[in-house]
Amino acid sequence: IPVGQRSEPTLSSECLIKRAAYLVADSSSTFLSQTTYALVESLTEYTTAVYTLISLQKKYTSLLDKMNSNEESAIWQVINGARVQMKQLKEQYLKYESSWKRAVSLSEMAAEAAYQSGADQASVTVRNHIQIVQSQVQEAQDQAHMAEVQLTASQAEEIKRTITEDKGNPPSGGSPRSSLSEEEEIPEAYLRED
Amino acid sequence: IPVGQRSEPTLSSECLIKRAAYLVADSSSTFLSQTTYALVESLTEYTTAVYTLISLQKKYTSLLDKMNSNEESAIWQVINGARVQMKQLKEQYLKYESSWKRAVSLSEMAAEAAYQSGADQASVTVRNHIQIVQSQVQEAQDQAHMAEVQLTASQAEEIKRTITEDKGNPPSGGSPRSSLSEEEEIPEAYLRED
Repeated sequence: IPVGQRSEPTLSSECLIKRAAYLVADSSSTFLSQTTYALVESLTEYTTAVYTLISLQKKYTSLLDKMNSNEESAIWQVINGARVQMKQLKEQYLKYESSWKRAVSLSEMAAEAAYQSGADQASVTVRNHIQIVQSQVQEAQDQAHMAEVQLTASQAEEIKRTITEDKGNPPSGGSPRSSLSEEEEIPEAYLRED
Repeated sequence: IPVGQRSEPTLSSECLIKRAAYLVADSSSTFLSQTTYALVESLTEYTTAVYTLISLQKKYTSLLDKMNSNEESAIWQVINGARVQMKQLKEQYLKYESSWKRAVSLSEMAAEAAYQSGADQASVTVRNHIQIVQSQVQEAQDQAHMAEVQLTASQAEEIKRTITEDKGNPPSGGSPRSSLSEEEEIPEAYLRED
């Protein structure tokens, strides 16, 4: 009887801590899922926006000789709009990326707390979850990176062509084509070497 | 209409992340409460055990001249039992202390995640909770420390007395009193200088 009496409060504290650790593991997983969905979704939106911009720029380049200045100005505005949207989507995914990183750290800590509290199953579940979302995010990041590489390549080509053409035809001051290099809306990818 | 359409998925992701951050904040608080209860309770049990040992030792010292060797041996066994229990309770509270520290770190991270996700109220609540439990634990730790200081003082006094008496009466080999300094069950506090 004294053994039972003495170990009861201990068991009870341990049991309550273990249950609370399960709750923390569960909610951390929920937080991790939500931040992962948001990040993958925003990375996908960003990637789509990058490809939209690439295709608009290609169309612009291919039609350059067949457009009058009104048509040129119109398509240039569309391209600028696409650039602005791409920039906004990049800011959005960077914001979600920092939330997601916080969620990963929190989940790692929750997995450790669960393990130390004897909630081994919850700990294993959270650690598996972390691995799965890390590979999901990696995949979406790789795709965004591939799109950025293509954008950089296509823009480098366009700059080269613009410079070559500008040598033949001196710039007509404020025309959409000559303003390309001064354009404030140029995305960072434009200037990167990667 | 396009403004509403475009911002809807963003709002939805943010909303879901915020709700998940509330869940994490809630469960971290529960985990923090449970580890705090366990730690404060085990610190109190430990403190009680230290005072029990002090009072048993004082009784032993005061009755030393009036006991025969059987009585002396009996009370010595009781003192040893009290020492073993004190040691076990110390191990227990150190275990809960590390759980509690993990819970504090986890709650700090949950508060930060809540704040960054726009769940400001949850963030403030968790931070307040952390401060409250830190002062509760501090108080229980101070009381345990005070008890340890008294134990050290009372044991130092007893050693001095034993040494003085042993000079007069050479040790009778394996008697409870002379074995005090070789006793493996001597708690760490016995040897500490604080």
